[in-house]
Amino acid sequence: MGEVGVIGKPVPEPGPTDVVVRTTAAMVCTSDVHTMRGAIPVAPDVTLGHEAVGVVHALGSAVEGLAVGERVAVGGVTPCFQCESCQRGFSSQCQGRMLGGARFTTQRDGNLAEYFLVNNARANLAPIPASLSDHQALYATDMLSTGFVAAEHAELALGETVAVFAQGAVGLSATIGCRLRGAGLIIAVESVPARQELARRFGADLIVDHTRCDPVERIMELTDGQGVDAAIEALGAPQTWEAAFRVTKPGGRISNVGYHGEVHEPLRIPLEPFGHGMSDKQVYAGFNRGGRGWLRRIFRLLETGKVDPTPMTTHEFGFDEIERAFALMASKADGIIKPLIHFDVGAEGAEGA
Amino acid sequence: MGEVGVIGKPVPEPGPTDVVVRTTAAMVCTSDVHTMRGAIPVAPDVTLGHEAVGVVHALGSAVEGLAVGERVAVGGVTPCFQCESCQRGFSSQCQGRMLGGARFTTQRDGNLAEYFLVNNARANLAPIPASLSDHQALYATDMLSTGFVAAEHAELALGETVAVFAQGAVGLSATIGCRLRGAGLIIAVESVPARQELARRFGADLIVDHTRCDPVERIMELTDGQGVDAAIEALGAPQTWEAAFRVTKPGGRISNVGYHGEVHEPLRIPLEPFGHGMSDKQVYAGFNRGGRGWLRRIFRLLETGKVDPTPMTTHEFGFDEIERAFALMASKADGIIKPLIHFDVGAEGAEGA
Amino acid sequence: MGEVGVIGKPVPEPGPTDVVVRTTAAMVCTSDVHTMRGAIPVAPDVTLGHEAVGVVHALGSAVEGLAVGERVAVGGVTPCFQCESCQRGFSSQCQGRMLGGARFTTQRDGNLAEYFLVNNARANLAPIPASLSDHQALYATDMLSTGFVAAEHAELALGETVAVFAQGAVGLSATIGCRLRGAGLIIAVESVPARQELARRFGADLIVDHTRCDPVERIMELTDGQGVDAAIEALGAPQTWEAAFRVTKPGGRISNVGYHGEVHEPLRIPLEPFGHGMSDKQVYAGFNRGGRGWLRRIFRLLETGKVDPTPMTTHEFGFDEIERAFALMASKADGIIKPLIHFDVGAEGAEGA
Amino acid sequence: MGEVGVIGKPVPEPGPTDVVVRTTAAMVCTSDVHTMRGAIPVAPDVTLGHEAVGVVHALGSAVEGLAVGERVAVGGVTPCFQCESCQRGFSSQCQGRMLGGARFTTQRDGNLAEYFLVNNARANLAPIPASLSDHQALYATDMLSTGFVAAEHAELALGETVAVFAQGAVGLSATIGCRLRGAGLIIAVESVPARQELARRFGADLIVDHTRCDPVERIMELTDGQGVDAAIEALGAPQTWEAAFRVTKPGGRISNVGYHGEVHEPLRIPLEPFGHGMSDKQVYAGFNRGGRGWLRRIFRLLETGKVDPTPMTTHEFGFDEIERAFALMASKADGIIKPLIHFDVGAEGAEGA
Repeated sequence: MGEVGVIGKPVPEPGPTDVVVRTTAAMVCTSDVHTMRGAIPVAPDVTLGHEAVGVVHALGSAVEGLAVGERVAVGGVTPCFQCESCQRGFSSQCQGRMLGGARFTTQRDGNLAEYFLVNNARANLAPIPASLSDHQALYATDMLSTGFVAAEHAELALGETVAVFAQGAVGLSATIGCRLRGAGLIIAVESVPARQELARRFGADLIVDHTRCDPVERIMELTDGQGVDAAIEALGAPQTWEAAFRVTKPGGRISNVGYHGEVHEPLRIPLEPFGHGMSDKQVYAGFNRGGRGWLRRIFRLLETGKVDPTPMTTHEFGFDEIERAFALMASKADGIIKPLIHFDVGAEGAEGA
Repeated sequence: MGEVGVIGKPVPEPGPTDVVVRTTAAMVCTSDVHTMRGAIPVAPDVTLGHEAVGVVHALGSAVEGLAVGERVAVGGVTPCFQCESCQRGFSSQCQGRMLGGARFTTQRDGNLAEYFLVNNARANLAPIPASLSDHQALYATDMLSTGFVAAEHAELALGETVAVFAQGAVGLSATIGCRLRGAGLIIAVESVPARQELARRFGADLIVDHTRCDPVERIMELTDGQGVDAAIEALGAPQTWEAAFRVTKPGGRISNVGYHGEVHEPLRIPLEPFGHGMSDKQVYAGFNRGGRGWLRRIFRLLETGKVDPTPMTTHEFGFDEIERAFALMASKADGIIKPLIHFDVGAEGAEGA
Repeated sequence: MGEVGVIGKPVPEPGPTDVVVRTTAAMVCTSDVHTMRGAIPVAPDVTLGHEAVGVVHALGSAVEGLAVGERVAVGGVTPCFQCESCQRGFSSQCQGRMLGGARFTTQRDGNLAEYFLVNNARANLAPIPASLSDHQALYATDMLSTGFVAAEHAELALGETVAVFAQGAVGLSATIGCRLRGAGLIIAVESVPARQELARRFGADLIVDHTRCDPVERIMELTDGQGVDAAIEALGAPQTWEAAFRVTKPGGRISNVGYHGEVHEPLRIPLEPFGHGMSDKQVYAGFNRGGRGWLRRIFRLLETGKVDPTPMTTHEFGFDEIERAFALMASKADGIIKPLIHFDVGAEGAEGA
Repeated sequence: MGEVGVIGKPVPEPGPTDVVVRTTAAMVCTSDVHTMRGAIPVAPDVTLGHEAVGVVHALGSAVEGLAVGERVAVGGVTPCFQCESCQRGFSSQCQGRMLGGARFTTQRDGNLAEYFLVNNARANLAPIPASLSDHQALYATDMLSTGFVAAEHAELALGETVAVFAQGAVGLSATIGCRLRGAGLIIAVESVPARQELARRFGADLIVDHTRCDPVERIMELTDGQGVDAAIEALGAPQTWEAAFRVTKPGGRISNVGYHGEVHEPLRIPLEPFGHGMSDKQVYAGFNRGGRGWLRRIFRLLETGKVDPTPMTTHEFGFDEIERAFALMASKADGIIKPLIHFDVGAEGAEGA
């Protein structure tokens, strides 16, 4: 726990329905930092990472419809799509296990590595359209995907109001998602000027800086005392969680995608804003989603220019600088939002972070 | 606070869209007891009650489609159906106010009285079909209505599993509701033998007695370690609230209709069973629903014999015995579930509880 | 039938829940032309029109929350919001009557008049925000509203594909609606260059000109033989209706908002593209929607600049030129899409078209 | 076309994700008769059938969680659950092909044979609980499944009204499904006394005999002129299809599961009952559904005694009498509804019908 470094591992061998991908680009996620800190338990020496794209290196014997050398992306979660949980539409909770679709890192090596294995490859790998760069495609694997999931669970009707708490990469993506769903008013809660600027660019109509005012009071004012139709929690902190309930009107939705693993206490729902359990408020605990179909729908939004998340990328590194990328993500220094990791495409070794 | 008694009040006068009803039968609700105890704040000397049926006594000048002398029922909530909250489908949160549709008792006199006023009468009053008794119709005003709302928010697909915590009148009604929605397995959590017996009669497949085992462990065993697709909280207590999260599988729903006003602390969601905020679990804070259309749909289920809630009625009183009915509801003595209050139909006075 | 002219009528008197509005601006709708031609049956000498805004002139005795002189808009449909149909969410089919919410013209005088009456005024009138012009607000009453309804019933998930048949004012509004719901690819079918140009401006990614190719074949090509996730029929013709089924993939939605009253034959669903009744395709017959809440949500999209429909307005007239406006709408000459009708605000007479 | 007989075929060999099942019991479906008549095109000498249960005979190399000798059922459709169509929830339209999930008979040999192959076995095979007979389990593979799909697409709210057109095995199952979803009033349209009797037993409240009255007029009378909230078409004929639109109220749903392949003409929607395209009516073209999870949910309803479909079985045959079973299903003579086919469990040969 607490230490990250590059170690050598053999190139994985694919089982019948697997594919091995040679990585060309990847990103570090804040949840990799949670893992490093022990807030997400994993096996020793496991490879981190779940945001990567690359080219098909080797195909399992039963895999059809993919070719060696094809550019592919894979979601940060890689469900089986065969089990009852997947068949019911909850593929992120694959096998009926909590977050069971999250295999990278938590169930086996992640993909911050030169080569990585993808289970149920036909269901999980999506070809990257020629018009998209690796950089763009990477955002589909987790940031946009998770942010869009947050926006979906906000269940916005056209013209409704929404508050998004925190404008990190997931919160910014949720802001994009709310714009895409036709929100009438998007209020972003954020104090860092560069993130405020991105929030505006991505669709926020109003910014609330919680370091300069009480964000709950301010949002109530901005909505004529009514509150918002939906609130998105994209941070994972007790304060934003509780604030989300306070700013949401009766009959509204609280959509959580924050990971509440750093504080070891139950989440607390304030009684009065919850109508003592009778407010017609709805809470959804959302998680990233995988699968070829979902990736391709996000790609389409990138291809037709409706979304461009790349301004979130504040830093770029080579794979040999990966430890610096981790350190920055942990400290959130230098205004980092997302670091892009380039892999030397000609390389033949196999090392994992 | 704390004292209940019968006092004299004038017969109310209807405004243009109101109707005044002469009561023929009513029921006391546990939430009347909450009110008596001060857990629900009300005006001094307000009349209690929100479960009553009767006959039309006087019509407002703009009310069409109803006639003096007609037998009518009215939901425990009486929304305006005109405001934006009602138009969005959240009529129980009328005017955008928390529980704003609940006008009886909380916004003006309730209907445990010989005469009572109904706002927006055309939208809120439903004629009682000739084939239904007052006794049957009364259950549509709150108990079945609230229990069915709980079942709806459990969002059961055909054949799914559900646990219902507590088998008071609302919990029993939720059990009926789950059977009506096609649950494959209904597990009722209850320790009182008479309530267990009713639960079985109303559709529970299995009973878990939480005084004889750990109900969470037992429900996990009964579902092969998978948990249930949905859990209904029909009590309003921290233990059952938390248990609901623990027994629900990832991707499941927690449907609350318990009133959590007796304990003055935030509701606590246990972290691990909530996937630290990423379990794809959904929580809904439900409340009773009103309106002519909804009442008539419940009446239809009663008329065609698909539902008979009257075995829940354990006691009957005359209106002059109302204080005894309250005392029993407060103490839950003598195995009381629901007390039916008969009004002397010939009476001409006007007194409120 | 067939003749339109201006006639004098008295200023209407409001009933208890009504409001009388003095018109400041209005628009002519193609359905007014349908009415003129007899394709929609109405009473003789009825006033046409259902797209108008103005100021409150007189209030019914029971109307609260509105003031004389206030700028207001009203939807083209004005449901009661009290009946069972409204309570079930189908307010456009008010009273359980087909299109029963459409009172202007079909049930009483329309609002192409200097003064007009609005039933259930508190539910149906929305104040116009100061930042919006009459011109902008008018689009909320029918064009955007109907187009957005079409987009809603297309039930688009983020990134999905959609084809919109015909880019008149409703089709263009549907295109805006699809963009607002996060469609990944919007294909607009239209041959008129000015409308194609507007379609692109409003969010269409690709234009198919059905006069230059077989639109079904072309859309199948553009979607790699898969078809679109949803098709919107915004014309009301047998050809576009059938084409909508042919271009929609199995498991897709056909959302109709075209009025099929000009051809007196049943609508025909081609068997094979419907999977002989087993294609998992869904068809929705949509209609304009009213109500204060819905209007205010559309206003919010206009206020925050997410939508600007005014480029659809190709012509402007004074009320005294209304017959010319009708003639143009009937002939669709001079590239007309929507004509804006100005009322002389100082006038005191009362005349209806 | 037109001839059915038993021919010898080798026992199939499983691919990596397949399982071969030895049949113990099966049923003949009316769609097998459609196939025989050429209304569903298939390869010459293909084995018919898609309703069968048995024991696992041989496992593909990559199949986990199943054992040779285990009793299993398989849905009449066997999707891959890997493709984009399956991931979107439309597994019956697997691969984006119309009815693409229907592999038995239409894409390869059916399972009216002593041995049959199941693709994607882990996703498609469900163990049969010990408490269920083969006879009961068989109904989950198509009849109950398709009838329940019909009831789901009727989107019934508690207490709503529904008409089910035709009470063959699918219509009867739809009636069961409507009861399970909490319909308030179920009207079954059927003229055959034995089917009327079963309809009542399965939950129909009222029977309309279309040979003795105009069923549209009668249903309108029975619903006080309002029409039903939903209509289910479970026959596949122009008359019932059109009647379904006529009896459904504005804002209602028409749920089709009838196969309209015998008449070679477009389906016709009558204009006026469709509000000329603006009735807020919704039409769904439904099809049988597969997958382990769905089968297990139906099994649960059978296990807890909430459903018993076996009274639909009017005839029983040995596999050597299969041609008689087909002849009866084609002629519908002798009051046949469903014939159960017993396989000699000790047999070792491999023959297909």
